[in-house]
Amino acid sequence: MYSTHLTPLMFLERSAYVFRDKTAVVYKDKRFTYKEFCARVNRMASSLRDAGIEKGDRVSFICRNTPPLLEAHFGVPLAGASLVPINIRLSSREISYIVNHSGSKAFFVDTSFTDLITPIKEELSTVNIYINISKEGMHKKLPGPEYEEFLSEGSEEHIEIPVEDENEVITINYTSGTTGLPKGCMYTHRGAYLNAIGEALELGMNSDTVYLWTLPMFHCNGWCFTWGATSMGGTHICLDRVDPLEVYRLIERERVTHLCAAPVIYIILSEYMKRNKLRLSHKVRMAIAGAPPPPAVIMAMEELGGELIHLYGLTETYGPHTICEWKSEWNKLPIEERAKIKACQGVSYVGFETKVVDENMKEMPHDGKTIGEVVMRGNNVMKGYYKEPVRTEKVFVSGWFHSGDLAVVHPNGYIEIIDREKDIIISGGENIASVEVEKIIYEHPDVLEVAVFSTPDEKWGEAVKALITPKPGTSPTSEDIINFCRARMAHFKCPRVVEFGDIPKTFTGKMMKYILRDREWKGRKKKVG
Amino acid sequence: MYSTHLTPLMFLERSAYVFRDKTAVVYKDKRFTYKEFCARVNRMASSLRDAGIEKGDRVSFICRNTPPLLEAHFGVPLAGASLVPINIRLSSREISYIVNHSGSKAFFVDTSFTDLITPIKEELSTVNIYINISKEGMHKKLPGPEYEEFLSEGSEEHIEIPVEDENEVITINYTSGTTGLPKGCMYTHRGAYLNAIGEALELGMNSDTVYLWTLPMFHCNGWCFTWGATSMGGTHICLDRVDPLEVYRLIERERVTHLCAAPVIYIILSEYMKRNKLRLSHKVRMAIAGAPPPPAVIMAMEELGGELIHLYGLTETYGPHTICEWKSEWNKLPIEERAKIKACQGVSYVGFETKVVDENMKEMPHDGKTIGEVVMRGNNVMKGYYKEPVRTEKVFVSGWFHSGDLAVVHPNGYIEIIDREKDIIISGGENIASVEVEKIIYEHPDVLEVAVFSTPDEKWGEAVKALITPKPGTSPTSEDIINFCRARMAHFKCPRVVEFGDIPKTFTGKMMKYILRDREWKGRKKKVG
Repeated sequence: MYSTHLTPLMFLERSAYVFRDKTAVVYKDKRFTYKEFCARVNRMASSLRDAGIEKGDRVSFICRNTPPLLEAHFGVPLAGASLVPINIRLSSREISYIVNHSGSKAFFVDTSFTDLITPIKEELSTVNIYINISKEGMHKKLPGPEYEEFLSEGSEEHIEIPVEDENEVITINYTSGTTGLPKGCMYTHRGAYLNAIGEALELGMNSDTVYLWTLPMFHCNGWCFTWGATSMGGTHICLDRVDPLEVYRLIERERVTHLCAAPVIYIILSEYMKRNKLRLSHKVRMAIAGAPPPPAVIMAMEELGGELIHLYGLTETYGPHTICEWKSEWNKLPIEERAKIKACQGVSYVGFETKVVDENMKEMPHDGKTIGEVVMRGNNVMKGYYKEPVRTEKVFVSGWFHSGDLAVVHPNGYIEIIDREKDIIISGGENIASVEVEKIIYEHPDVLEVAVFSTPDEKWGEAVKALITPKPGTSPTSEDIINFCRARMAHFKCPRVVEFGDIPKTFTGKMMKYILRDREWKGRKKKVG
Repeated sequence: MYSTHLTPLMFLERSAYVFRDKTAVVYKDKRFTYKEFCARVNRMASSLRDAGIEKGDRVSFICRNTPPLLEAHFGVPLAGASLVPINIRLSSREISYIVNHSGSKAFFVDTSFTDLITPIKEELSTVNIYINISKEGMHKKLPGPEYEEFLSEGSEEHIEIPVEDENEVITINYTSGTTGLPKGCMYTHRGAYLNAIGEALELGMNSDTVYLWTLPMFHCNGWCFTWGATSMGGTHICLDRVDPLEVYRLIERERVTHLCAAPVIYIILSEYMKRNKLRLSHKVRMAIAGAPPPPAVIMAMEELGGELIHLYGLTETYGPHTICEWKSEWNKLPIEERAKIKACQGVSYVGFETKVVDENMKEMPHDGKTIGEVVMRGNNVMKGYYKEPVRTEKVFVSGWFHSGDLAVVHPNGYIEIIDREKDIIISGGENIASVEVEKIIYEHPDVLEVAVFSTPDEKWGEAVKALITPKPGTSPTSEDIINFCRARMAHFKCPRVVEFGDIPKTFTGKMMKYILRDREWKGRKKKVG
């Protein structure tokens, strides 16, 4: 056999060869060509090796969306190690768990987070070297070199790709889940290659692609766009803080063609643009995932000139696994209907498989009504949880990955997520999907965001509760919302209680409903539906 | 490991699910949806199994670009067998060799070719069943069922993909080469998957793609577009005879977005369109390969509205391996300069590797001058020649596939093929690339096609000879051509002899210079350069 290993490291090699003088990375006033990007990656890999990193080691990174984290997606595996990107919103305790569990030997720390690391430094016994990624105005540092100094000590000479088996682990992405300790999803070189190519194909990327980093790179390796945009020789626009003014400004200045984000980012961006009477001057493909997008959000963004592409997946599936594959005949429909279709999670990417099944793995009828669990298979399903064979086996019962998400399948074969298994509210024996109630509430003109969850109820066991963030300048009442719902859906599904305030969310925009639910159920036992 | 095998059979499964009611295949007045296309494929696979075809068997096809051959690219491997598509321009003797060498158990024969098979039928001892693909007005048949009858006996029920190892052989493509017996290039499921995806990526295909079959499907499985266009849910427009009127008519009627062909097809098409004052009404991406395209051809086609994409590869590399990856800054250049750049073979596809080396595998300098051999590596290099371990080992010396093509590498890293090793003319000790001379001659306004090759010369050992097909309505003289050349290049490179007439070509448009050369050298010994 004369075939070669699938690894995304080939992407950078090729782009540095073909697009050597093209801009690869933009961050504030810095611009790196592909040749420079590749030289920096080679320097990182060679310095890591000089620092004692060996094949199979792990290297942790806690860093905003700046060039070092992008470089790490190539430099760390080129040194033969696995990259462990850490969510910047975690607590010291969680970070300590991840660095220790992964046994990372090197730890790159953006100096904005030095204060998080200093108190746990003694616990991190496997870490031999800290590298400081300095942020302007941040003077607190860990003992160890500066990032740029670390690079400058390395050699920019070409390094042979050290992959001997394409199923070697390229990154470990820890996912918090809602209960228990974080689990490290292992991504392979093969999986990363195929997923990156999948993103390029599904989102129609090519060498003219300009990709804006609204999505954190630490989240599923930025849904594999770290590798995907590089595969096509596209340009990465780094962004270390998602601010609507800055997002809009960069889209226009850099002629951004693609970006990814959770619904909340699009809500904020569209509100900002409407308020300031702005529109996009060119077509931008916007991938949306992380939570089912309410039709109102899709409509708002498309009216401003965005082309939304709805994706769905989990950390365990390298990010996106399904796409609401758009059919040209739907373009003729009114925007409300288009938005309704686009809210479906859709179908598997090319080369992947998805089913909605009952507890015996029997496929559910495609009737748009019968609810089952989403299971997935293919080269974009993780290799397993790092050092957790039992938890791995549990989610892979019958050879398919069990997502824990509940969905129906429409007659056209498109799936639609109804809810997370644990977000289902059981009131008087009836199952109520919190997402369904949220969708209705989003149609209320004063609602910016809403989370629906269960609260204890003496009579019905559980009742529906809603926490709403109103749009600026509005002040809807609890009664308004309840009446609005009653006019639009079965009364047993309507919220009994409505409160107003901020909704706790992960940095990636996922609502942390378990916090809200736990608050309601403190000291009581909620049956998981 | 919970990953799945890479196989293009997944493409049809997905497209039949996602795009069930979309038109998949068009041929004359027939139109099949993806659901119907998939049902026909399932019927073929199930009938083949009923006919005794087992895992690992071979099935031969001799057929024009009609739906049965497209269906065979999925149906035969779905039955577990390898497809052997046969060039329809071969002689009975060559066909007999291929069917016997591959040990095919079933043989599908387009009735246009019954007369070729009847005389050799007795020799084809492994064939247990013949299936007749009837062409209107052709009544001669081999004993055996009609194709449609054969399908109707099968079941259209879903069949599990029978791949147990992605390196199993999906097709065997026999290539005649210029000397010796045909060699069967083995393509794997993995390679076919990755090449098909590569075509989709590089040519920017998606579900709006309408692909016109100007390229024979029997040639490298239609450069893997049989699978590639299917992967995206595109529409295949079958075409059983390449006639410029019909090509133009179909491009317009079906709103074709992509097609592939050898230069000769573009020459004929552009001549026809110019003569009839026609232009393309929409953008069509046209892949060109099979021979280095003379700049004049690129210019002519682009002036009519085509967007030419220059690819290069061999049967051993699943068809295209390199692409003249286009850079947007080149769009500003005048068409002559653009055409010159576009005539380069360029750089590897994403995920593949190409080098130009000397006999010690040392890379040649990137100076646009030093000539070396093109070698390739990656998942689009064949598994080997079927049942030919020695010939396989020979072309894979040092782990790279040796193409036998000679090229220079330009300072920007793009390769440019100078000639086939055996087409180099050595005159007075000087190497003359026949392709270089041809390029100049193509600039002459009266030249439709030209082949340059060596003829014996008492004084210089070899001399340059040209065979020219003039454009209709012109009659250039030998002197015209020689003077035209002398004004444009070193005199030792100019043809000494010029003749006029038809140039022998393979059906895929490759000039068969060896026929011309052999005619000149009959009874003498030409040193291979």
